[in-house]
Amino acid sequence: MASDQPKDWRFKLHEVIYESNTPAGKAFDIGLLIAIFSSIIVVMLDSVVSIHLRYGKLFNITEWIFAALFTIEYILRLVSIRKPIRYVFSPLGIIDLIALLPSYLSIFFIGAQSLLVFRALRLLRVFRIFKLGHFLTEINFLTQALKNSVRKISIFLLTVLTITVILGSIMYLVERRENGFSNIPESIYWAIVTITTVGYGDISPITPLGKFVASVVMLIGYAIIAVPTGIITHDIAVAARQKKELPESCPSCSREGHDSDALFCKYCGSSLFK
Amino acid sequence: MASDQPKDWRFKLHEVIYESNTPAGKAFDIGLLIAIFSSIIVVMLDSVVSIHLRYGKLFNITEWIFAALFTIEYILRLVSIRKPIRYVFSPLGIIDLIALLPSYLSIFFIGAQSLLVFRALRLLRVFRIFKLGHFLTEINFLTQALKNSVRKISIFLLTVLTITVILGSIMYLVERRENGFSNIPESIYWAIVTITTVGYGDISPITPLGKFVASVVMLIGYAIIAVPTGIITHDIAVAARQKKELPESCPSCSREGHDSDALFCKYCGSSLFK
Amino acid sequence: MASDQPKDWRFKLHEVIYESNTPAGKAFDIGLLIAIFSSIIVVMLDSVVSIHLRYGKLFNITEWIFAALFTIEYILRLVSIRKPIRYVFSPLGIIDLIALLPSYLSIFFIGAQSLLVFRALRLLRVFRIFKLGHFLTEINFLTQALKNSVRKISIFLLTVLTITVILGSIMYLVERRENGFSNIPESIYWAIVTITTVGYGDISPITPLGKFVASVVMLIGYAIIAVPTGIITHDIAVAARQKKELPESCPSCSREGHDSDALFCKYCGSSLFK
Amino acid sequence: MASDQPKDWRFKLHEVIYESNTPAGKAFDIGLLIAIFSSIIVVMLDSVVSIHLRYGKLFNITEWIFAALFTIEYILRLVSIRKPIRYVFSPLGIIDLIALLPSYLSIFFIGAQSLLVFRALRLLRVFRIFKLGHFLTEINFLTQALKNSVRKISIFLLTVLTITVILGSIMYLVERRENGFSNIPESIYWAIVTITTVGYGDISPITPLGKFVASVVMLIGYAIIAVPTGIITHDIAVAARQKKELPESCPSCSREGHDSDALFCKYCGSSLFK
Repeated sequence: MASDQPKDWRFKLHEVIYESNTPAGKAFDIGLLIAIFSSIIVVMLDSVVSIHLRYGKLFNITEWIFAALFTIEYILRLVSIRKPIRYVFSPLGIIDLIALLPSYLSIFFIGAQSLLVFRALRLLRVFRIFKLGHFLTEINFLTQALKNSVRKISIFLLTVLTITVILGSIMYLVERRENGFSNIPESIYWAIVTITTVGYGDISPITPLGKFVASVVMLIGYAIIAVPTGIITHDIAVAARQKKELPESCPSCSREGHDSDALFCKYCGSSLFK
Repeated sequence: MASDQPKDWRFKLHEVIYESNTPAGKAFDIGLLIAIFSSIIVVMLDSVVSIHLRYGKLFNITEWIFAALFTIEYILRLVSIRKPIRYVFSPLGIIDLIALLPSYLSIFFIGAQSLLVFRALRLLRVFRIFKLGHFLTEINFLTQALKNSVRKISIFLLTVLTITVILGSIMYLVERRENGFSNIPESIYWAIVTITTVGYGDISPITPLGKFVASVVMLIGYAIIAVPTGIITHDIAVAARQKKELPESCPSCSREGHDSDALFCKYCGSSLFK
Repeated sequence: MASDQPKDWRFKLHEVIYESNTPAGKAFDIGLLIAIFSSIIVVMLDSVVSIHLRYGKLFNITEWIFAALFTIEYILRLVSIRKPIRYVFSPLGIIDLIALLPSYLSIFFIGAQSLLVFRALRLLRVFRIFKLGHFLTEINFLTQALKNSVRKISIFLLTVLTITVILGSIMYLVERRENGFSNIPESIYWAIVTITTVGYGDISPITPLGKFVASVVMLIGYAIIAVPTGIITHDIAVAARQKKELPESCPSCSREGHDSDALFCKYCGSSLFK
Repeated sequence: MASDQPKDWRFKLHEVIYESNTPAGKAFDIGLLIAIFSSIIVVMLDSVVSIHLRYGKLFNITEWIFAALFTIEYILRLVSIRKPIRYVFSPLGIIDLIALLPSYLSIFFIGAQSLLVFRALRLLRVFRIFKLGHFLTEINFLTQALKNSVRKISIFLLTVLTITVILGSIMYLVERRENGFSNIPESIYWAIVTITTVGYGDISPITPLGKFVASVVMLIGYAIIAVPTGIITHDIAVAARQKKELPESCPSCSREGHDSDALFCKYCGSSLFK
């Protein structure tokens, strides 16, 4: 009985910190998110010179309070589970540590405090909260569709990168150093800026031939933007069909996955409409 | 009988001002839209310095005439319905009031007249007119599709915003103040400019590492633009299917999915119109 | 018999000039396109100062030769059909006349020759040639899909324009004259540049609030680009389904338009598979 | 027996160099890709002035080593097949030769070494490696979808080019030389920059009328970007359907469209595997 008590206490703490489907857990998650959000706002404002000069000291104190809070949270996360090492090396655990370290590093190294911006990574926790309620279905749905697309999108991005290396190199030969295309990596950067239709204009072609090549790059970029869109649209449709097909099940063998126009079960051959 | 008369008068006025499926109501709506449009053109032209210097006085008079017209319209809207308070706090009512106030505020406060630009909000009334006739189906259709997408698009925009906060913060560390990334909010602004492929070029990376990070941001932006497109395309297809499927189901086998021009059920062959 | 001869001659000429499914007609169309293309190249090159200084006289002579050729072509078009007035007021006829006039106007007005650029409009004839052979189906298909989209796309563009008027006006209040937003039309121009993700950077926000509003405009533009894409994708799918359904026809009543999974004719109720 | 030996030796070499489904062949392909990649990195770094000044000599030696390696590879490719002339004139063979020549040309012509950037073309070999394993299906799938789209996309690009020629020419008349639109080809370049939503801002309209025309160009570009997307999305869906439908047709009723996991025909209920 006595040995159960620490387990109970750990179990309750675990429920509050790690689970988010209980009132206490949800409250904790929302509170944590507000803390993360506020601490990021402070880091942001502190980076603005004029505000830093006026409120720098106040921000310094606030940041230490946040550091203390997040340290306590991190320790609680460690003690509330049986295998703390698992959390430490989980993606969220690594992010939490990265977000925690800069405050302590700044004692030893000047400038390390600017690494506090990595606290922004913790914003990703926002999706844990949204996973509750009505958003859950939508997030699962989108995640499923994007998972199906990952491989196709990577082939696409690889092709785009190869094209930008080739076109960037050609452009380096065409425009030469004096027109801003000072080396091949710079020219590839220009090709990416152009093919993605961002177009800063910090580097832009000057010679007629360069403008012609640039036009080709732009039209390629304009036409192939359609490819990832087509891929994801298709995979969303596929994910939607799978989601939709789930409820229908065969009255004989109770297996699922039949087309909406099927008359007989495709697994056991008996009629779907008895 | 005598007590009915004011009701009749109010009813008729209501029909003209609020309804748009009668000839009088339609004429009123079109007239109102022309007035709104003209008043906005006047505000626009008055903002151009050279035109203001020549026609400033004329514009001033015109604006007061429009102010008077819209005030009368507002009063008529109030008296022609039983519960005027409802209109006042309806979205269109609030817009009408916001569009009305600047003219009167400019008597007391210098510069308040520039708030007249909010009259542009009244342009949204244009959709009331288009709701008539053949456009009605299309508008309903698009509205339905977009309503289905709202939740998914907001998850998407939230993800994009989180990414821009993280990437913007990283870029602030990489490029530093002297290269235009003067603080974190500014860097996040840059990340939004880049990820949306707008690319003004007012802030652009200068260091090689910064250009590398920027390239990653651009490629992310180029690939994930596909997500909202996929979502909306899918929801348009779903909305189209629902519109199409709604009217028919076979009275014999109760199966759905018949074309709008079908006379017999395509599954059991019995007539759809018993 | 004698009275038939001019008719024959006109008929043959008509076939060569207006039809493009005979060898002679196709050759004429291709020859005409080459002439149009060459004449545009000449106008283009002549607009480049350095080339104009060297070859200006040669270009002048060439342009007069093209003008003579196109005049002869225009006259032949008039005489080879019974009702020439129809051609004159047809879209292609008006374009042909617009392309013809500048050469003659330049005799009386200096500078009118620069209107020769309108000859570029004749490039639209290229689609007449492509209408032949395998491209015909694709062009019809795309035209059908786009025709279905026109109304929805115009509602979309109207919404975008209303948004740009409102956001442009707000931006004019936020950024003021000294930051480049010199008047409301200019601010609306900026809003269009931003919402379409073009982003020249000739006008860009300077104040923090302006940058915030701009970010909102960009994210709106980034999200709603999906709408026309969704519309056109859907209408292409619909057009494809209609095209696909054409071949299948009922063996009893020979009516078409059955779904690919239909078992019975939806018009007469008899089996589709006898 | 003796005559077989060289054949065996050639056969084995062929397997290593040309095939990639054996361990040796795969290792060769990956090794080759690493060599190509490294040689491109060297060319890239050598183009950066500051790095060239420090490591120029080292890079020079490395480039000659790579040249020797690729020459050996080219010779091995020639000797390991019966008809070497076929390889020489195949697309990959031409690319390999183009990538090889600059090293040797640089002995005779100063500056020819900069043509080494064409070695980037060899990066296209990366797709040979990805053709193995799980990526094969995806690549085939995407290639099929894009093949179907080629014709439609070219009609689209032709239309866009015609529009840019017309709009560019009009803009040349509207803005004139002094505002940066120095000749018609330049104006067409601007129109392409604008319609593809790249928007460098190196040339941008200055007069009110020019800004109006530019706004029209942008909105056109914003609306028609949807067309290639719609086309490709549709063709991806078609390719997906074909892939899915290919393997199965019911042996009883010969109807197709069964899922890949179906055991019984969904139309007649008989087993799909008799």
